[in-house]
Amino acid sequence: MIKIGVVGGTGYTGVELLRLLARHPEAQLTAITSRGEAGMPVADMFPSLRGRVDLRFVTPADAELERCDVVFFATPNGIAMQQAQALVAAGVRVIDFAADFRIRDLTEWQKWYGMEHAAPELVAEAVYGLPERNREQIRNARVLANPGCYPTAVQLGLLPLIEAGVVDLSHLVADAKSGVSGAGRKAEVHTLFSEAADSFKAYGASGHRHLPEIRQGLVQAAGGEVGLTFVPHLVPMIRGIHATLYARLLKDVDVQALFEDRYRGEPFVDVLPAGSHPETRSVRASNLCRIAVHRPQGGDVVVVLSVIDNLMKGAAGQAVQNMNIMFGLDEMLGLDLVPVSP
Amino acid sequence: MIKIGVVGGTGYTGVELLRLLARHPEAQLTAITSRGEAGMPVADMFPSLRGRVDLRFVTPADAELERCDVVFFATPNGIAMQQAQALVAAGVRVIDFAADFRIRDLTEWQKWYGMEHAAPELVAEAVYGLPERNREQIRNARVLANPGCYPTAVQLGLLPLIEAGVVDLSHLVADAKSGVSGAGRKAEVHTLFSEAADSFKAYGASGHRHLPEIRQGLVQAAGGEVGLTFVPHLVPMIRGIHATLYARLLKDVDVQALFEDRYRGEPFVDVLPAGSHPETRSVRASNLCRIAVHRPQGGDVVVVLSVIDNLMKGAAGQAVQNMNIMFGLDEMLGLDLVPVSP
Amino acid sequence: MIKIGVVGGTGYTGVELLRLLARHPEAQLTAITSRGEAGMPVADMFPSLRGRVDLRFVTPADAELERCDVVFFATPNGIAMQQAQALVAAGVRVIDFAADFRIRDLTEWQKWYGMEHAAPELVAEAVYGLPERNREQIRNARVLANPGCYPTAVQLGLLPLIEAGVVDLSHLVADAKSGVSGAGRKAEVHTLFSEAADSFKAYGASGHRHLPEIRQGLVQAAGGEVGLTFVPHLVPMIRGIHATLYARLLKDVDVQALFEDRYRGEPFVDVLPAGSHPETRSVRASNLCRIAVHRPQGGDVVVVLSVIDNLMKGAAGQAVQNMNIMFGLDEMLGLDLVPVSP
Amino acid sequence: MIKIGVVGGTGYTGVELLRLLARHPEAQLTAITSRGEAGMPVADMFPSLRGRVDLRFVTPADAELERCDVVFFATPNGIAMQQAQALVAAGVRVIDFAADFRIRDLTEWQKWYGMEHAAPELVAEAVYGLPERNREQIRNARVLANPGCYPTAVQLGLLPLIEAGVVDLSHLVADAKSGVSGAGRKAEVHTLFSEAADSFKAYGASGHRHLPEIRQGLVQAAGGEVGLTFVPHLVPMIRGIHATLYARLLKDVDVQALFEDRYRGEPFVDVLPAGSHPETRSVRASNLCRIAVHRPQGGDVVVVLSVIDNLMKGAAGQAVQNMNIMFGLDEMLGLDLVPVSP
Repeated sequence: MIKIGVVGGTGYTGVELLRLLARHPEAQLTAITSRGEAGMPVADMFPSLRGRVDLRFVTPADAELERCDVVFFATPNGIAMQQAQALVAAGVRVIDFAADFRIRDLTEWQKWYGMEHAAPELVAEAVYGLPERNREQIRNARVLANPGCYPTAVQLGLLPLIEAGVVDLSHLVADAKSGVSGAGRKAEVHTLFSEAADSFKAYGASGHRHLPEIRQGLVQAAGGEVGLTFVPHLVPMIRGIHATLYARLLKDVDVQALFEDRYRGEPFVDVLPAGSHPETRSVRASNLCRIAVHRPQGGDVVVVLSVIDNLMKGAAGQAVQNMNIMFGLDEMLGLDLVPVSP
Repeated sequence: MIKIGVVGGTGYTGVELLRLLARHPEAQLTAITSRGEAGMPVADMFPSLRGRVDLRFVTPADAELERCDVVFFATPNGIAMQQAQALVAAGVRVIDFAADFRIRDLTEWQKWYGMEHAAPELVAEAVYGLPERNREQIRNARVLANPGCYPTAVQLGLLPLIEAGVVDLSHLVADAKSGVSGAGRKAEVHTLFSEAADSFKAYGASGHRHLPEIRQGLVQAAGGEVGLTFVPHLVPMIRGIHATLYARLLKDVDVQALFEDRYRGEPFVDVLPAGSHPETRSVRASNLCRIAVHRPQGGDVVVVLSVIDNLMKGAAGQAVQNMNIMFGLDEMLGLDLVPVSP
Repeated sequence: MIKIGVVGGTGYTGVELLRLLARHPEAQLTAITSRGEAGMPVADMFPSLRGRVDLRFVTPADAELERCDVVFFATPNGIAMQQAQALVAAGVRVIDFAADFRIRDLTEWQKWYGMEHAAPELVAEAVYGLPERNREQIRNARVLANPGCYPTAVQLGLLPLIEAGVVDLSHLVADAKSGVSGAGRKAEVHTLFSEAADSFKAYGASGHRHLPEIRQGLVQAAGGEVGLTFVPHLVPMIRGIHATLYARLLKDVDVQALFEDRYRGEPFVDVLPAGSHPETRSVRASNLCRIAVHRPQGGDVVVVLSVIDNLMKGAAGQAVQNMNIMFGLDEMLGLDLVPVSP
Repeated sequence: MIKIGVVGGTGYTGVELLRLLARHPEAQLTAITSRGEAGMPVADMFPSLRGRVDLRFVTPADAELERCDVVFFATPNGIAMQQAQALVAAGVRVIDFAADFRIRDLTEWQKWYGMEHAAPELVAEAVYGLPERNREQIRNARVLANPGCYPTAVQLGLLPLIEAGVVDLSHLVADAKSGVSGAGRKAEVHTLFSEAADSFKAYGASGHRHLPEIRQGLVQAAGGEVGLTFVPHLVPMIRGIHATLYARLLKDVDVQALFEDRYRGEPFVDVLPAGSHPETRSVRASNLCRIAVHRPQGGDVVVVLSVIDNLMKGAAGQAVQNMNIMFGLDEMLGLDLVPVSP
């Protein structure tokens, strides 16, 4: 059994992680910390966990996280970098849901996240936890940077084209749409039901924090510069990300076969038959990414449709997948959930 | 392994049943019939099942259902009663999601369902599959009438009061609210997104088919007549039933303790602490019923709030629970799902 | 032209009031106050008003409200009572959206609202602005208490039965459901999209502030005590209230005719044909209340279904209706909006 | 007063047109035809119109449409082309909501719409009713082709760039998102609430009927070939279209000024301040198009965000705007509605 600590279990990625760990056969949930809610039973905050998670929130001081095998940080940006060093020194492996260890270029990171980095040396050794790209490095990671939700959907949709070198890298477009849970469980006006329901909007069109993360992954795959326009949108649904990706083909290639070959054997990436349109609900509450590829009117533009559940493959599910890899378990352990539809 | 046939797997209760059976450790899915869709892979109709259900729909003729151990009818009213006799004769146990075997009084049944009953003798032997009430009879049932969604939520909410004889039986009120999936997957105008979203309405206020089913259950528990007003409503959500139940107390009783005692040990009924208000999402995609009890201003009216997922405890989940009981398995087998929230 | 001031225009009832006043032919919008947002163009906060409302928020000090003919308070409870006295003394009429002047019994008010009342003498003279009940008194009101949303829907649904003396007053039930905008535009977790969408729950089952307001209205109509159980629920929709009302008939009466007679000539109450089920969307963005009456199975229970738009007939629309009456205008002026459906 | 006939008033664009005409000061609604519903009061089908539209549906034969001044066809493709000739001959002006008269190139039209055109000579004379482009020709139109919803949002967003000749025309991208009412009021499975709610998907990625219509408009503005990739998506909301448009700038131009200049004085196009993100709800139930322009990171890609209400500026509202122009009325008559928000 893996002894597990969770820092910051009061948000949506936190409760989703608990939903998974509560029935993971190798997980022994040891401590869930929350400064603000210490003493409260976790199931009082999240009635969906009644009877499945019996722990109470504890203060970080009482959590004895250094006795865990792994600690998940389901915290805002800037928290994990404060505590990871001590945990790593104590032999505890760290999985961070936030952006603290995702961006190699510290100057870039500091520009987008507006703070000084507290653990630059860990950034250098941290592994970016996209298993479809970095599975081998993940096995031995001490610090794992769990990818962002948009970056997961966009990268999985563009990597086959970029790795194969078949598209114009100068003008890629990622038009991405997210359910509202991606904004977290903070009390804010713009994500109130009456603001977000029955409406649709773009946001961050001039620049969004996930852009440098996506670009870094694409640049690594391309081995050169990448011009990407990334526009996120808010969809009146709870979960789900849909990325619509546009690229210009440089050569006439069978894009369907390209994608099928690239993801053959991947347990959580499903390439749909040609002509398909994946719906976000077809992956709801599961760790799957489903992808379809189109060439409208047989022209030189390829359109990739990529969907994930932002709280699963976009956060908690991928984190558990990474944990499974890090601890030598079957990658699907605890993640054999069939999507909930309707 | 239990060999399982499914008749009519193209509706919402059908796909939900398949979601459960796909990962039930003792289930061996043998055939899924659909006259209209024979030959089509099930996962083409329901992409959420891709990689988890590999069968194609077959015609009833090709299904060889008489070789199954159990056959589920996820069909409209009036289908199971045509086929159940032959299956039972072949030693196959039958679980019907529809109303064919729920109502003992055939005249009453024929009045509400508008057809002649094709298998009256099976009605007489059929067991009403509410485990919290009929667990022992379910074990040996050859024909199991799986309860309706509203009847499950309402009966579980009222039974403790009625069995204890503490409420006025002449004027019970069940104000019930259902998500739209309760109306099924038929193409109809009134359940289109643009009709049902961002709106709320009652329906069937003058009489709904679930009324005689609920009344029959309450009368059995009461051992006498019951006056019940039942008004269903349509909620702009996909899944979930919320029953708000009103009764007048005849004696001063600790209603909280009454409910806790009644459901102690029940694996799928969760009585919340006093003062709670269960949300339907707290049981989403799980087989749970959560109940809270109130006495507004300490008066003589008791208000019971009872929530279920209509496709789970209100249909497919309860059917699997019944199958587990009928085949001597752990009642929770394949139903250990943590509710999906948010 | 009526010179109008609005105090607290940053909430949903505020923006709805501005939507109406922006095209009301006799309204001259003079000042909109907000301490926090002073200086900001109103249309920056509410882009739906771009090109229609050109004012900026001003501080109360700069608003010169005493020069207005009428001031609307679209503020939380406890604000209007602080400022009304001075305005009334200056000859300004006051319309309060909150509860400050709704409850005659100050002890009761203080119990439910948890504060000392600052203007008891105005409570005594204030008129409760339900035109269908108090039209004559409204004409000369100096202080008008605009009714709450639930109280409007429930009273309009029960008044005909109570005024006619045909129902048992001891056990009335009001099962009421509201869209999320009824909770206001405050940043709170429980009304976030990801909390309130695709779910349904009751709240305040043991006691809600609108109960004493409803009871006061019913008691006045009954001329005696009334026993009412009121349970509000939260519906995943933006606007709309649906009240489902249950009463026991004491005599055999034509309830359909009773309602049609009671509301004949009322410009904003529409009694539907027998057998109808009003949807909240059939009144969306309009000042209408639509009502249907049922007697299930012809028994002694009458079920009334009453729907309004909580921001219109439940707040801003009714306030403008009251203003029209107070200033001798056509009651429908500026309120001739056809409901928006779908 | 303009005598008006409506053919096919049983869909969403039909009821929206009736909502507008019911309070248009110059409109005299004479007949609403429906073969299937002849005899039924219109308000029985659409309770939102109770008290505002007193007509019954009539058969086309009884409608005496040739006595009207104008006839609106809120019908599926292929209907108006059958009847327009006779009406025009009788001096009646025709406004078609469908695609019958939108595409000049009959071969192209027949390819996408799969039928022979019944009135080619009217196609030649028909005016494409985008007032911001063709206001002068609209004044005298006998046959007016009301633009599609997607084409309206996309063209208004791209025209300023194309007319100014500042973008690369070979690789334009229009990523468009529509509320579900755009699919009409037909009973179909894929637009059921339980299918479309809480989910998001693309459709028609390989080719959609609105593509040739959009391309025709852009080609006319460009005076040359245009390469456009158009991918529509379905959003779980009732009304609204959001088009996210991507183009590569060929020269460094002040795009904000370009858009403001282009639409100065347009009554229904609102260019938002730089940095804005229009929400579809900011135009809900109004005839407005709101547009914002971005240049992410100051690069050579321009992103245009364009929102409309698909039933208003995308259908019925634009049709009334066109009627106003055709009959020499104030263009805003009957369209002075403030958007409904929240």
